[in-house]
Amino acid sequence: MLLRRFAFAQYAQTHACLGALSACSEEFQRLPQNINFGTTYVNITIGAADDTALSAEDEQFAGRIAALAERRE
Amino acid sequence: MLLRRFAFAQYAQTHACLGALSACSEEFQRLPQNINFGTTYVNITIGAADDTALSAEDEQFAGRIAALAERRE
Repeated sequence: MLLRRFAFAQYAQTHACLGALSACSEEFQRLPQNINFGTTYVNITIGAADDTALSAEDEQFAGRIAALAERRE
Repeated sequence: MLLRRFAFAQYAQTHACLGALSACSEEFQRLPQNINFGTTYVNITIGAADDTALSAEDEQFAGRIAALAERRE
């Protein structure tokens, strides 16, 4: 599993991060295994799509989310 | 703190629950302390607005969220 925490100064950035995550999910037609957020952070857990080992597609999904979220940190 | 878990049969209901939660947050102009969700569940933690004891307003906020979320369970 891949777990990453994004921390923000303000809720507006957190909200933008969640929006970016939603767009990624639409694009990849999949959801992270778990999303955990509060006012100024978003923790994202991505599991293997096939429930066994992480694939190149899983890494690509995680990489895209990270690229979009980091722009808002 | 108040913690409640809502479980759903399908992601569409989870998505509707998150939308209802967003509408509640707009209405009350506040956010839960933590929101944790996956494909078929949403865990919501509400802390005291003043960081000390839970108030009637906190309970009202939690009650409104529960009423909206339960319709989707």
